[in-house]
Amino acid sequence: MQELTTKDKQETYKKLLEAAVKAAEQSYSPYSKFPVGAALLAKDGRIFTGCNIECSTWDGTTCAERTALVKAVSEGYREFVAVAVVCKKLKDCWPCGICRQFLAEFGLNLDVIVEGTDGTLSIMTLSELLPQAFGPHSLPR
Amino acid sequence: MQELTTKDKQETYKKLLEAAVKAAEQSYSPYSKFPVGAALLAKDGRIFTGCNIECSTWDGTTCAERTALVKAVSEGYREFVAVAVVCKKLKDCWPCGICRQFLAEFGLNLDVIVEGTDGTLSIMTLSELLPQAFGPHSLPR
Amino acid sequence: MQELTTKDKQETYKKLLEAAVKAAEQSYSPYSKFPVGAALLAKDGRIFTGCNIECSTWDGTTCAERTALVKAVSEGYREFVAVAVVCKKLKDCWPCGICRQFLAEFGLNLDVIVEGTDGTLSIMTLSELLPQAFGPHSLPR
Amino acid sequence: MQELTTKDKQETYKKLLEAAVKAAEQSYSPYSKFPVGAALLAKDGRIFTGCNIECSTWDGTTCAERTALVKAVSEGYREFVAVAVVCKKLKDCWPCGICRQFLAEFGLNLDVIVEGTDGTLSIMTLSELLPQAFGPHSLPR
Repeated sequence: MQELTTKDKQETYKKLLEAAVKAAEQSYSPYSKFPVGAALLAKDGRIFTGCNIECSTWDGTTCAERTALVKAVSEGYREFVAVAVVCKKLKDCWPCGICRQFLAEFGLNLDVIVEGTDGTLSIMTLSELLPQAFGPHSLPR
Repeated sequence: MQELTTKDKQETYKKLLEAAVKAAEQSYSPYSKFPVGAALLAKDGRIFTGCNIECSTWDGTTCAERTALVKAVSEGYREFVAVAVVCKKLKDCWPCGICRQFLAEFGLNLDVIVEGTDGTLSIMTLSELLPQAFGPHSLPR
Repeated sequence: MQELTTKDKQETYKKLLEAAVKAAEQSYSPYSKFPVGAALLAKDGRIFTGCNIECSTWDGTTCAERTALVKAVSEGYREFVAVAVVCKKLKDCWPCGICRQFLAEFGLNLDVIVEGTDGTLSIMTLSELLPQAFGPHSLPR
Repeated sequence: MQELTTKDKQETYKKLLEAAVKAAEQSYSPYSKFPVGAALLAKDGRIFTGCNIECSTWDGTTCAERTALVKAVSEGYREFVAVAVVCKKLKDCWPCGICRQFLAEFGLNLDVIVEGTDGTLSIMTLSELLPQAFGPHSLPR
């Protein structure tokens, strides 16, 4: 876990978490009844939000983090600083392996932020959450 | 195939196809080098666009249609009229089965529009493209 | 829908459906509680069976048809004649779009068999279930 | 990283890696041209093998680890000891995040084995590879 080094960073990440809470309100999760929200901070300061969207076939379901990411990428963004994730029914809820992999496509140097069980922010980097990651660098050129 | 019944519809669908062409410019497809764009028309007239976004693991890749759909759903939209799809390297390119399934979550009564090999619009409904569809109605309550 | 042209074919497909029923017993579906079984008939007569296997993240879930298919492919099989699918809680339950797409990788000339609501076999070809299919032929060479 | 504690374990894991190498021969990877094999050791000693199987839509592609896992689960197996993974074109190639998540469904206490760049075995547990894992325990009951 990283320490929050500056007051600014803490302020920014709190706002990101609040954006994720708000994004979860649009969740389409009739099967799991487990709404999730995410907010992705791009390098230039713009925030993209997402929620989980389920599919009756189970597979095909898209998590909140990936919804936020595809929104950002489809608008030309490729560099990101941090992503906050909020599961309304579970504190200390980190991204699933599928989202970790998809986020890794755009860099492992990403802060991942969740709300801890004690109400404080918890932060880990994507490289901590996906050690020995497979990624664009793994494929032969 | 459906006939375009009114001039208005044709105008709208042409614009939708143009939006899909433009959306394909943001495609992140370094592995397939097969850029795709989509534009989804919501019931109230708003258009959401998307592109394909690939993952070095192949699985996890998100098609243009699903990118557009999750953008719309994450902003509270649930009802759609039509989706246009453009593959820059292939005419007459219809959505894959995965996208057909995911789109079906929000209704089979959707016009799907592609550019035909002769330059004209081709239209099929999602119910024609995914006959005998599994969907929310299939699950026991 | 195709007519069953010979008594032999009907016998074979009945057995395939029975194998799918048996395969569903191994289903891992704690989230949907919707067990599914499949049986895939290879060109040389060998039958591969599969069940649905769910993931707590919803996405990542693998349907019965894809389980059967990857078993067959991983043992060197590439050519298939028919696949039978049985949903224990739903008659007349056809493969989802994701499975249709994955099966299409190995040819659209595949008979898909389900148990109809009246107890008889229903058969459609994969090319009927996935018209205008995207597939290996769609990619530029 | 864990130390190999006994000569027996090392022998077993070497054999598992050899089974993965052999399994990669069946790989269907015409798009990535990146064949992968996996071998999964069940608690009772049985070994299930798998290879990666690609889909022209990119999404839908199934990695070698998941192929091996669905084979095992569809035959009634639920408890596993270790999985070996071999990428023919890349040493020190660990499972992707999607596979880590899917394997986690059946327990994080799993040894994951790859061939290191120096020819020796490298071992990590799944709980090391997917820290703070989302899993069956995360969902409300």
